[in-house]
Amino acid sequence: MKAVGVIVEYNPFHNGHFYHIKESKKETEADITIAVMSGQFLQRGEPALVDKWHRTKMALLSGIDIVIELPYVFSTGHATHFAEGATQLLDAIQCDSFAFGSEQGTIQPFLNTYSLLKKYDDDYNALIKQFVSTGLSYPQSLYMAYEKLKKLEEKDYIDLSQPNNILGYHYVEAASRLNLSIKPVTIQRIKAGYHDSIFKDSSIASATGIRKSLFESLSLDEIKNYVPTTTFTQLQEWKDKHTQFVNWDTFWPLLRYAIIRNTPEQLTQFADVSEGIEHALMKAARKSHSFSQFMTTLKSKRYTWTRLQRMITHIYTGITKDALQQFSKPTYIRLLGMTSDGQKYLSENKKDFKLPLISRVASTKDAMLQLDLRATEMYGQGLNLVSKDAPAADYQTPPIRL
Amino acid sequence: MKAVGVIVEYNPFHNGHFYHIKESKKETEADITIAVMSGQFLQRGEPALVDKWHRTKMALLSGIDIVIELPYVFSTGHATHFAEGATQLLDAIQCDSFAFGSEQGTIQPFLNTYSLLKKYDDDYNALIKQFVSTGLSYPQSLYMAYEKLKKLEEKDYIDLSQPNNILGYHYVEAASRLNLSIKPVTIQRIKAGYHDSIFKDSSIASATGIRKSLFESLSLDEIKNYVPTTTFTQLQEWKDKHTQFVNWDTFWPLLRYAIIRNTPEQLTQFADVSEGIEHALMKAARKSHSFSQFMTTLKSKRYTWTRLQRMITHIYTGITKDALQQFSKPTYIRLLGMTSDGQKYLSENKKDFKLPLISRVASTKDAMLQLDLRATEMYGQGLNLVSKDAPAADYQTPPIRL
Repeated sequence: MKAVGVIVEYNPFHNGHFYHIKESKKETEADITIAVMSGQFLQRGEPALVDKWHRTKMALLSGIDIVIELPYVFSTGHATHFAEGATQLLDAIQCDSFAFGSEQGTIQPFLNTYSLLKKYDDDYNALIKQFVSTGLSYPQSLYMAYEKLKKLEEKDYIDLSQPNNILGYHYVEAASRLNLSIKPVTIQRIKAGYHDSIFKDSSIASATGIRKSLFESLSLDEIKNYVPTTTFTQLQEWKDKHTQFVNWDTFWPLLRYAIIRNTPEQLTQFADVSEGIEHALMKAARKSHSFSQFMTTLKSKRYTWTRLQRMITHIYTGITKDALQQFSKPTYIRLLGMTSDGQKYLSENKKDFKLPLISRVASTKDAMLQLDLRATEMYGQGLNLVSKDAPAADYQTPPIRL
Repeated sequence: MKAVGVIVEYNPFHNGHFYHIKESKKETEADITIAVMSGQFLQRGEPALVDKWHRTKMALLSGIDIVIELPYVFSTGHATHFAEGATQLLDAIQCDSFAFGSEQGTIQPFLNTYSLLKKYDDDYNALIKQFVSTGLSYPQSLYMAYEKLKKLEEKDYIDLSQPNNILGYHYVEAASRLNLSIKPVTIQRIKAGYHDSIFKDSSIASATGIRKSLFESLSLDEIKNYVPTTTFTQLQEWKDKHTQFVNWDTFWPLLRYAIIRNTPEQLTQFADVSEGIEHALMKAARKSHSFSQFMTTLKSKRYTWTRLQRMITHIYTGITKDALQQFSKPTYIRLLGMTSDGQKYLSENKKDFKLPLISRVASTKDAMLQLDLRATEMYGQGLNLVSKDAPAADYQTPPIRL
């Protein structure tokens, strides 16, 4: 059996994801699809709308055959680290290829860009420095340096101002640099852009748009056209059980308490908290009555929303810089769920996996896995504030079989 | 002006306290009464029913002229440390004497007991060891050793099995050992014992009984006969504002989160958390749905309710063993409130105070005081869970003037 991998958050699963799975299988002629999915906390530094079990179920009900968890260490990390963890896991579980969506839509320009930047690495860094010294921001300087470099060799390159091209580039770059045998493939994204809100007349909307609608409208019906029925049912089930979807507003009383309970000095134990932001975090937590007030107080050109949210995630879970830094590569493949086809693939290929497959977490002492268990617990603590029916701990939850 | 000091928690202020103030002034012929009062967290390791400002008001409305705060370092400490902090503060503010309630009712037996235990210190410790080695518990061994020692010199001694005699003994012992010029005085306690619940036919009830009634009955009317009208009004005002009185149940979601957010190893940073109780705390927090379930799981002969609650207080406030251990004696007199007589006393005697008087906390950087401010903040975070109207931070609150 041939498997294609996808790197996902499914927050929540929507029609665009469905389209991507279908196209990925077609393009790669794969028999099954394996998703490596972020757990309770996501790359932009926020808790998932619904927990990983509900998101796993959405995936399995809509075309994914196996869902494995991207460990907390990678799922909440910077793009490079995120990409390294995800591609290594898909490689370890013997996917033939992995497919990502991009504005570009063809893979060669990604490979060309990678070769170019690798070849002219020193020039690239020198150019960036030069642009920064003229007063441009770091992302602007990156872009300008790249534009200059592209003129050196006449080939097709990707446009690095497009968000999904950037993400895809990180995957391609990670797989190449780490010499993984897994092959990158890209699928053209359709319609709704990442930053769009819901278009009433379309059946594709971004996850961001869908979340916005879920938090702003009292009825789930608003998003009905943009997600598979199976997602809709899972979301409905979650809401009935837990009264609301999760975001930082839900966890705010605990988050604020966690920040204030530290001294500014103690806050610097957490990744990226340094150079004085610890005092600003403390001060903002003290005087803010809501998460959005807190973030608005803190946000600046230097401290972007995402950067702040990543700090906050680690403060909230209590996972320190030191705890994160001990790990550079995945140490296990954590199974969250599978279909019967997925199960067949696992039994056939298990012996060739490059990392141990973990189905029951109770039986392992893996240090990296302990952070995932903690993340689930902390997610549950926050959910407890609004729900009588908080999710079970990881060691009480077996993989979902469909 | 002559001042008598009292050492109090007023959780809440009741008729017994009123009687004690009246008798203390009569006995010592003092012009005014000064209370050193625990702040937001109390000696038995729990948050106060209502915050220190409401309790200050109760005191000032019922016969106290000046209320100063017993710093967190002492108010949450063991009896010896508590007594040292309290007596030193009353001495520093130039009280002529301090008066405590006791079952004994006369001061000489306290002084006799102190002399006896000081004189036969080595014998006492040897006897205790001897009794412990026979299998008796430590408190039982203390009692037996003391009973034996009493036979050495024929004098009146206090009965050290009575809770208020024990407390009073700690005060007398602290004042003597520290060579304070303040004079100890004791007032016979009346009627309700510490462990009693409310007696329907009496107008004196213990604070424990009153709290029990406040948490169990939906109406404040139940306690009307046991507290001054002014206390009743303050309690009513609190309940209208914050929907409920505070105990660990109120703070439970934050407390559980604080425990679980640590690793067991990190929990050992907090006072008294060692020898494996850190694992038990973690395990109990994980599986308990309420504070009482949590405590029932943990309570044992070795780990008494109070001992556990003290650990929990520090975990909740995030104040580590190291932070506590840097302090052995009070470094300031923190004014919480005063009557006009109290104000007159302060202006007349301020120059002779042995420690700086602090009215506005914003203007000082005292390290011990920072812990009090943190305790107030953490109390406020817990109250936030149930109230839209959490108490202001200490630096926003001037002393109460009545």
